[in-house]
Amino acid sequence: MNIKGNQFLYLQIADRLEKQIIDQVLKAGDKLPSVRMLCREQGLSMSTVTQAYYELESRSLIETRPRSGYFVSLPPVKRLAIPETSNPSVLNSPLSPDDLVNQVYLDREDPNNTLFSLGMPHDDFLPIAKLNKGMVQAMRNLPASGTGYELTQGNENLRREIAKWSFGWAADFTEHDLITTSGCMNAISYALMATTQPGDTIAIESPAYFGILQLAKSMGLQVLELPTNAITGIELEALKKVLATNKIKVCLFVSNFNNPCGSSMPDEHKREAVRLLEHYHIPLIEDDIHGDLYFSKNRPTTCKTYDESGLVLYCNSISKTLAPGYRVGWIAPGQFKDQVLKLKRYQAVSSVSLTSEVVSTFLRNGRYENHLRKLRQSLHHNSMKYSAVIADYFPEGTRVSQPQGGYFLWLELDKNIDTVELYQRALKQQISIAPGRMFSFQSQFDHCMRLSFGLPWTSLLEKKLQQLGKIATNMQKP
Amino acid sequence: MNIKGNQFLYLQIADRLEKQIIDQVLKAGDKLPSVRMLCREQGLSMSTVTQAYYELESRSLIETRPRSGYFVSLPPVKRLAIPETSNPSVLNSPLSPDDLVNQVYLDREDPNNTLFSLGMPHDDFLPIAKLNKGMVQAMRNLPASGTGYELTQGNENLRREIAKWSFGWAADFTEHDLITTSGCMNAISYALMATTQPGDTIAIESPAYFGILQLAKSMGLQVLELPTNAITGIELEALKKVLATNKIKVCLFVSNFNNPCGSSMPDEHKREAVRLLEHYHIPLIEDDIHGDLYFSKNRPTTCKTYDESGLVLYCNSISKTLAPGYRVGWIAPGQFKDQVLKLKRYQAVSSVSLTSEVVSTFLRNGRYENHLRKLRQSLHHNSMKYSAVIADYFPEGTRVSQPQGGYFLWLELDKNIDTVELYQRALKQQISIAPGRMFSFQSQFDHCMRLSFGLPWTSLLEKKLQQLGKIATNMQKP
Repeated sequence: MNIKGNQFLYLQIADRLEKQIIDQVLKAGDKLPSVRMLCREQGLSMSTVTQAYYELESRSLIETRPRSGYFVSLPPVKRLAIPETSNPSVLNSPLSPDDLVNQVYLDREDPNNTLFSLGMPHDDFLPIAKLNKGMVQAMRNLPASGTGYELTQGNENLRREIAKWSFGWAADFTEHDLITTSGCMNAISYALMATTQPGDTIAIESPAYFGILQLAKSMGLQVLELPTNAITGIELEALKKVLATNKIKVCLFVSNFNNPCGSSMPDEHKREAVRLLEHYHIPLIEDDIHGDLYFSKNRPTTCKTYDESGLVLYCNSISKTLAPGYRVGWIAPGQFKDQVLKLKRYQAVSSVSLTSEVVSTFLRNGRYENHLRKLRQSLHHNSMKYSAVIADYFPEGTRVSQPQGGYFLWLELDKNIDTVELYQRALKQQISIAPGRMFSFQSQFDHCMRLSFGLPWTSLLEKKLQQLGKIATNMQKP
Repeated sequence: MNIKGNQFLYLQIADRLEKQIIDQVLKAGDKLPSVRMLCREQGLSMSTVTQAYYELESRSLIETRPRSGYFVSLPPVKRLAIPETSNPSVLNSPLSPDDLVNQVYLDREDPNNTLFSLGMPHDDFLPIAKLNKGMVQAMRNLPASGTGYELTQGNENLRREIAKWSFGWAADFTEHDLITTSGCMNAISYALMATTQPGDTIAIESPAYFGILQLAKSMGLQVLELPTNAITGIELEALKKVLATNKIKVCLFVSNFNNPCGSSMPDEHKREAVRLLEHYHIPLIEDDIHGDLYFSKNRPTTCKTYDESGLVLYCNSISKTLAPGYRVGWIAPGQFKDQVLKLKRYQAVSSVSLTSEVVSTFLRNGRYENHLRKLRQSLHHNSMKYSAVIADYFPEGTRVSQPQGGYFLWLELDKNIDTVELYQRALKQQISIAPGRMFSFQSQFDHCMRLSFGLPWTSLLEKKLQQLGKIATNMQKP
């Protein structure tokens, strides 16, 4: 397949459609021709047309409606543009996000701070009473009340329930394919240990979750940040080029509702990325920690869904959905199962049975699904409230991501606004944000920031968000 | 100090005393001259005399009685000798203990197996009902019932209680000196990551706990096994020689009731080892997991007690005393605190609050001390029962350790008996042992085995132990 040629073709289609929209041939709210119809009429391939539509979506010109198709976007009071596709340079800058991350972590210690900087569910969103009941039940159910060592592979009930739960959107797991871990970062850390040596290079999204950057650095790995689209994630063309150089040992993607920029790889991108990596025999570590937090009708698929050779090491946890403090995560390491199992045995021996058992019961009796439904609604609701305040209070020209799930909005401000300075000014008013510099070894995101909408919406929160917008506006050069 | 000269001097003293015992000048049950008196009378140093007495103890000729001094050993029905000081060669053999360890782990799956091979407390020894009550209380006490992330450094209550608990025999910790971990091996694994790079060499005891061997190998470390005395642990002379070569990056000692051979470093050995390592600026990772399980009157000290420069990374857990499945451990990393804290943050984010809180309550209200008193009694009692059966049923010439704490007896059989074969024969009779080959990268312990006495004493257990002795006796060449 000539992807290079394809790329130009899809841009041509997108440009033509954009002209139609600007010329009001296609009016706000109009339905666009279906992908199938356009293919037939114009003699184009499915992937060209789909890519053209993604491009228009990324330009905020069109939007999808579940089960209905593509529509020309309604003109909002003030429609914000989506952040540009990132374009990291190949060289690392000497800037490290470390000190900044430590500083932002400290902001937790003052209970009066409004923590837009945190990537986790607020207590109010957690089913604490039900979890406590589950714990009492777990002490009753487990042999010796869970005081003994469990198998290194992890609580069997939990592994079986996760296998059932993942059916359809991840892969046809059995309990034998899964190993429990102490949260998702622990899974990712075993995955990196199983597939890399110090000095190796890994390819990741850009911007990327700072925890991944720090982990990779502490393991002596080189990090290659790939151009990343704020809607569709990693740019396949860039990935293809990088793979051809033979320098990459492993890829690590947050495929759904990426942290921080909110992108999700479309199905065909996932399939194509897996195909490419298989071709080069390069493992993919997939972090799906936000996958259950989708705002649309259906659970998105994963790269693991398309993995036929076992090269995908799939990582997940309940830390963003149910109980971060339970430290329950898991990995489906594919062909690296033996290595990961050994690493877990040597470094941790086994996991905490009790918290695993509580989660397994939540999955089995449907409480997890019930809980998720409510949590997703709250998060979706919040994300829209945030967007409205940002449109009204943040500086002209602010670009903001449109995540279809997860916890985060990613904002691009005027290039002249240094968000580390913004962070410091905001903190004086007890507002904590995550400046863009935390999310890259490079300086390309110094005017960006991540805001978490995982906080209950209150009038105080609204006021703080408005305040933040005003501080940013004041920083803008005239 | 001329240790080399000293070494010969102490052997001379030991030999002279041995002759007096053999000649019945000193009779069974006689008190030996006190160390102080012998020093004065013979113009010797304290360390020479003490070393001479250890030597005699290791020859099973004399024994200590707490607060009374040294006595000529009583002739038992059949007095077993103590295993010889190990003498590993410098080259690693191609034999790996890995497959054997995996095999022995599998023995757990058949509930009809008698597991002399396991190094953990039997459920019957654990205060399960009280732990469950503690868990209910912990859910009440912790913010959000422990569902949220705690600080990376770990539950503050637990760290404070451990600091209080360790006072006197470890070091004057505060909660700031400690970081909680997922058990002791997790602490050791962070300690090794903080102090080594792949390719580095670490020095350990020999025989050594297989988990440590496997961990080191998986991290690409070279392992140097040091000569180890079955009573006093690592041979200081050997350590000194090895340190002088400048090849060692870090030492890792199980200073009290070593797994598998039961040795404990005497106070002056601990002090001297720390002094030596400080001289060479080499960190010491100290595994004190069995330290609370002493059979004599007092809690033994640790190397950390003598650590003035912060080079000792002290590791411990409650996995061998209270609740293995809770995964509660800790590390006092000294001057490596920042590195260890970062490693924990990157690889695991945080620990399980709830199980930490339960342990902290146990420590605070004295339940842990009460529980330990009973557990120590059971283990001491068991160790004596085991020794009696071994004396009666195992082959002539069997040597056995005399641990003053912990879980394990270490047996040296006739050189012609391959304990892997013994393991296989015993397993057919549903008896699982840990063959010596699991405890070294070399083949020097192929005629040894480790037996755990952490099982409740029953007539079935007694029968199984007798049976094991008979199988071994049958394997002895005429």
